[in-house]
Amino acid sequence: VIRAGVVGATGYTGAELLRLLAGHPKVDIKVITSRAEAERRVDDIFPNLRGHVDASFSEPHLEALAECDIVFFATPNGIAMTMVPELLDMDVKVVDLSADFRLKNANVWAEWYGMSHSCPELLLEAVYGLPELNRAAIREARLVANPGCYPTAIILGFLPLLEQNRIDLQCLIADAKSGVSGAGRQAQVGTLLCETAENFKAYGVPRHRHSPEIQQVCSDIAKRQVGITFVPHLVPMIRGIHATLYCHCSNPDDDLQMVFAGRYADEPFVDVLPPGAHPETRSVRGVNECKIAVHQTQGGMMVIVLSVIDNLIKGAAGQAVQNMNLMFGYDETLGTKATALLP
Amino acid sequence: VIRAGVVGATGYTGAELLRLLAGHPKVDIKVITSRAEAERRVDDIFPNLRGHVDASFSEPHLEALAECDIVFFATPNGIAMTMVPELLDMDVKVVDLSADFRLKNANVWAEWYGMSHSCPELLLEAVYGLPELNRAAIREARLVANPGCYPTAIILGFLPLLEQNRIDLQCLIADAKSGVSGAGRQAQVGTLLCETAENFKAYGVPRHRHSPEIQQVCSDIAKRQVGITFVPHLVPMIRGIHATLYCHCSNPDDDLQMVFAGRYADEPFVDVLPPGAHPETRSVRGVNECKIAVHQTQGGMMVIVLSVIDNLIKGAAGQAVQNMNLMFGYDETLGTKATALLP
Amino acid sequence: VIRAGVVGATGYTGAELLRLLAGHPKVDIKVITSRAEAERRVDDIFPNLRGHVDASFSEPHLEALAECDIVFFATPNGIAMTMVPELLDMDVKVVDLSADFRLKNANVWAEWYGMSHSCPELLLEAVYGLPELNRAAIREARLVANPGCYPTAIILGFLPLLEQNRIDLQCLIADAKSGVSGAGRQAQVGTLLCETAENFKAYGVPRHRHSPEIQQVCSDIAKRQVGITFVPHLVPMIRGIHATLYCHCSNPDDDLQMVFAGRYADEPFVDVLPPGAHPETRSVRGVNECKIAVHQTQGGMMVIVLSVIDNLIKGAAGQAVQNMNLMFGYDETLGTKATALLP
Amino acid sequence: VIRAGVVGATGYTGAELLRLLAGHPKVDIKVITSRAEAERRVDDIFPNLRGHVDASFSEPHLEALAECDIVFFATPNGIAMTMVPELLDMDVKVVDLSADFRLKNANVWAEWYGMSHSCPELLLEAVYGLPELNRAAIREARLVANPGCYPTAIILGFLPLLEQNRIDLQCLIADAKSGVSGAGRQAQVGTLLCETAENFKAYGVPRHRHSPEIQQVCSDIAKRQVGITFVPHLVPMIRGIHATLYCHCSNPDDDLQMVFAGRYADEPFVDVLPPGAHPETRSVRGVNECKIAVHQTQGGMMVIVLSVIDNLIKGAAGQAVQNMNLMFGYDETLGTKATALLP
Repeated sequence: VIRAGVVGATGYTGAELLRLLAGHPKVDIKVITSRAEAERRVDDIFPNLRGHVDASFSEPHLEALAECDIVFFATPNGIAMTMVPELLDMDVKVVDLSADFRLKNANVWAEWYGMSHSCPELLLEAVYGLPELNRAAIREARLVANPGCYPTAIILGFLPLLEQNRIDLQCLIADAKSGVSGAGRQAQVGTLLCETAENFKAYGVPRHRHSPEIQQVCSDIAKRQVGITFVPHLVPMIRGIHATLYCHCSNPDDDLQMVFAGRYADEPFVDVLPPGAHPETRSVRGVNECKIAVHQTQGGMMVIVLSVIDNLIKGAAGQAVQNMNLMFGYDETLGTKATALLP
Repeated sequence: VIRAGVVGATGYTGAELLRLLAGHPKVDIKVITSRAEAERRVDDIFPNLRGHVDASFSEPHLEALAECDIVFFATPNGIAMTMVPELLDMDVKVVDLSADFRLKNANVWAEWYGMSHSCPELLLEAVYGLPELNRAAIREARLVANPGCYPTAIILGFLPLLEQNRIDLQCLIADAKSGVSGAGRQAQVGTLLCETAENFKAYGVPRHRHSPEIQQVCSDIAKRQVGITFVPHLVPMIRGIHATLYCHCSNPDDDLQMVFAGRYADEPFVDVLPPGAHPETRSVRGVNECKIAVHQTQGGMMVIVLSVIDNLIKGAAGQAVQNMNLMFGYDETLGTKATALLP
Repeated sequence: VIRAGVVGATGYTGAELLRLLAGHPKVDIKVITSRAEAERRVDDIFPNLRGHVDASFSEPHLEALAECDIVFFATPNGIAMTMVPELLDMDVKVVDLSADFRLKNANVWAEWYGMSHSCPELLLEAVYGLPELNRAAIREARLVANPGCYPTAIILGFLPLLEQNRIDLQCLIADAKSGVSGAGRQAQVGTLLCETAENFKAYGVPRHRHSPEIQQVCSDIAKRQVGITFVPHLVPMIRGIHATLYCHCSNPDDDLQMVFAGRYADEPFVDVLPPGAHPETRSVRGVNECKIAVHQTQGGMMVIVLSVIDNLIKGAAGQAVQNMNLMFGYDETLGTKATALLP
Repeated sequence: VIRAGVVGATGYTGAELLRLLAGHPKVDIKVITSRAEAERRVDDIFPNLRGHVDASFSEPHLEALAECDIVFFATPNGIAMTMVPELLDMDVKVVDLSADFRLKNANVWAEWYGMSHSCPELLLEAVYGLPELNRAAIREARLVANPGCYPTAIILGFLPLLEQNRIDLQCLIADAKSGVSGAGRQAQVGTLLCETAENFKAYGVPRHRHSPEIQQVCSDIAKRQVGITFVPHLVPMIRGIHATLYCHCSNPDDDLQMVFAGRYADEPFVDVLPPGAHPETRSVRGVNECKIAVHQTQGGMMVIVLSVIDNLIKGAAGQAVQNMNLMFGYDETLGTKATALLP
């Protein structure tokens, strides 16, 4: 049994992580921390966990966390990096769901996150936790940087095309749409129901923090620098990301359906839909899955990939559990199989 | 392993039943019928079942259904009663999720459902499938009438008060609110998103079909005729029922919190919240649970009970599986434990 | 032309007031204040006002407000009372949309609002601004206490019954449901889309601040103390209040439809629907109207009144403009006629 | 005063048209037709029109329509073309809100709409009713083809770039998102609240009926054949279209903000937002306006245009009234000025 700790568990990602870990047959949640809510019962904030997580939040102390086999960080950016080095020294494995270890270049990180990185030497060690890309490395990792939600949906959608060098790398477009839970559980006017319901808008054009992450990973896959335009939008719903990806095919006769189906044939959590399909975010709501459809228009020259995930599961907590399973030698799907609720 | 059939599985109740049965460790789904969608793959209509239910709809034939140990009817009213007698004769157990067997009096049934009942003799045999009320009888039953969604939320909220004779029976009020999935998956203007989103209204005043069911069961519990006013409302959300119940306490010094907590102490699927609580429908979304809070105002004279369920689970498919477990001697909670998604 | 000032215009009530005043043919908005947003353009916060309100927020200064003929307070409770006495002294009329002047008894006010009242002598002078009840007094008033949103919907629903003494005054029940905008534009977790969408719950049982206001006004109308149970609920939508009112008829033979139709025949903003109707909140969204239907069940003994308003219009800003029109001798409907958007 | 008729007024476009015409100071609605709802009161279907439109639906008869100065068709595709020739012969002007007269080529029309066109000779006469493009011609027109909702948002977004030949015409991308009202008021499963709420998906890839319309008009503007990829998506809200447009700038030093601001400086219903802005659909909800922002990324090479409209107003009924004003020599903005509701 894995003894697990969750740091910063009062956000939506933390809540999902607790829900998944509580239902995982090989996990015992030992520590749940929150500075702001220390002493308060977890199910007081998350009523769905009543009867499932019988615990209270505690202050984050290294001594308590050192008793764990693994610690998950579901904290704001800039927190994990202050605690991770010591945890690793004490032989605790770490999955960081924040952005602290996703970029390889400390200067780029500092530029985008507005502070200098406190342990840049770990940036190179950290494994980018997308199992479909880095499964072997994740198995051996001490420190996993769990991917961002937008990057997960977008990278899985471009991956087969990048690996096989099928597309023009200079004008990739990722038009992405996210439910409001992607903005977190902070008290802020911009994500009130009255500000987001019955409304649709783009935001973060031209700069969104997920851009360098997408850029870096796609370039790594393509083994060349790629040019990506990324435009995020806010959808009046709670969960789900839909990425609509556009790129130009090098060869209009390519059978891209076969490329995708082949690449993901053995992946437990990527489902390539049949030709002509349109994946819906609700079909993956609450489950650790990415559904993908690929279309070609304009005589095959224009490739359109539709990729959907639940931003809190495959885009965060579910992928973190998937990574934990790999790191501890368990079946990758343990505790993350479920069927989406519909309607 | 129980061989199960589902008749009329193209509605939301049917879809939920398939989802639950597919995840049930002791069930093998043998037959899934639909006249309208015969031959079509189930996951074509319900994309969440892709990879979980690998089957197509078939025409409803008695021979195929006779191979089952149990048949669930998720059909419009008036269908089950035409097939149930023969199935029972062939030793197939039945859980009917429609209203065909919920009322004891065939004349009352005919008045409310606009047709005469084709097997009135079975009305008395049928057991009203509310386990918290009729657990022992359900265990022995061949035919279970699964309760309506509104009645489940309302009856569980009044039950302890009625059993203990704590309230004035003549002026019970049930102000109930339901998500739109309660109206089913039929093509109709009234439940389009554009007609129901950003809107709230009452409907069915003064006559709603669930009234006689609530009236009958509450009167049975109280062992006297009760007078109930029931007003349903449509909430702009998919799932969930919230019943706000009002009645007058016979004795303002009664500790009703204790009455509720005691009555439901051993119930796996009824959760009595602590004093002062307000249950939320989202806390039971997707799970087979009723959460209840009891309040007293006006010096204790006015009792307010707040009761929430997921109309498709505890109000339909989940309760049906709970009944099946009882009918076949399994642990009542098998296959119906889950943690609600939040947010 | 009326020179108008709006104090505290960064909330939803303030925004609606600006929208209505900007479209009013006899109003010139001179001052728009906000401490928090001073210097910021109004249309930067409320993009719908771009091209309609060409102004910036300013700090609230008495000198500037004294230049106005009327000042509206759309402030949190406890602010208006600190400025109103001086404004009145300077011959500025006031409509207060907060709760500072709604209660007549300073002790009751202090108990519910947690502070002592700074000008209790004005509580008696202030006219409760429900034109259907106090039209003549509003015409003469210097200071109008604009009713709360719940009280408006509830009082208009009970009014004809209370005036004509048709009901048992001791067990009135108001089961009310409100869209989330009723909770304001503050940054708070509880009203995030992710906390309120796809959810329904009661709140504030047994004590909500609108209770004493409802109690006071209903008792005034009935000329006797009434007993009211008020339970508010939160609906996953932006705008709208639906009040479902229950009471016992003194005489089951009363034709209550006629009572309502007669009482409101000349009211420009109360629409009594035909028998059997169910008013929808969307039918009054964006307009200054209350739609009401009356039903009788249980042989006429139980009266059910359904009453809907837009909480931000007839429940706040629209009623404030209606009051202003009366105070300045204009046609009561000036600037508040519009047709609701549907869908 | 213009005598107006509306054919097929039971859809959402028809309802909006009635709302706008009822509030128009120079219009008298003489005829409102619907085969399906003949004899039924209009406000029975559209409760918001109660008190504003005092009329019933009638069967569509040419004699009655011939009494009108203008007839609007808000019918399904294929209806208007059967009645328009006779109306024109009787000197009745026509604005067709369906797709019958939007394409110039009868063969292309037949291919996309699955029937042959009954009056192809009128295709060339019909003026495409986008005032920002064809104002002068609309003033003289007998027959106006009111643009589709997606085309309106997309063409207004590309227009300045196409006119000035600033972009690569071969790889235009229009990633468009629409509220559910765009799918109409038909009884169909796909647009039920339970199928569309809490969900996001693309549809109609690779072929949507608005593609040839966009293609034709954009090519006309550019005076060369353009290559456009159009992907529509369904947003869980009632109203609004957001088009995110991508194209490659011919010259990265172009100041496109100035190009847009200059082009639309005198347009009453196109609002070019300041640099860096993100228009929101709610800011145009209920109003006849298109708000546009232009961004450049990747060193200016990639142009991103964000364009929002209310699909039922600027994308349908509002634009139809704007066209009517032009056709009858009235101020173009008469009866279509309003301020969007927010929240």
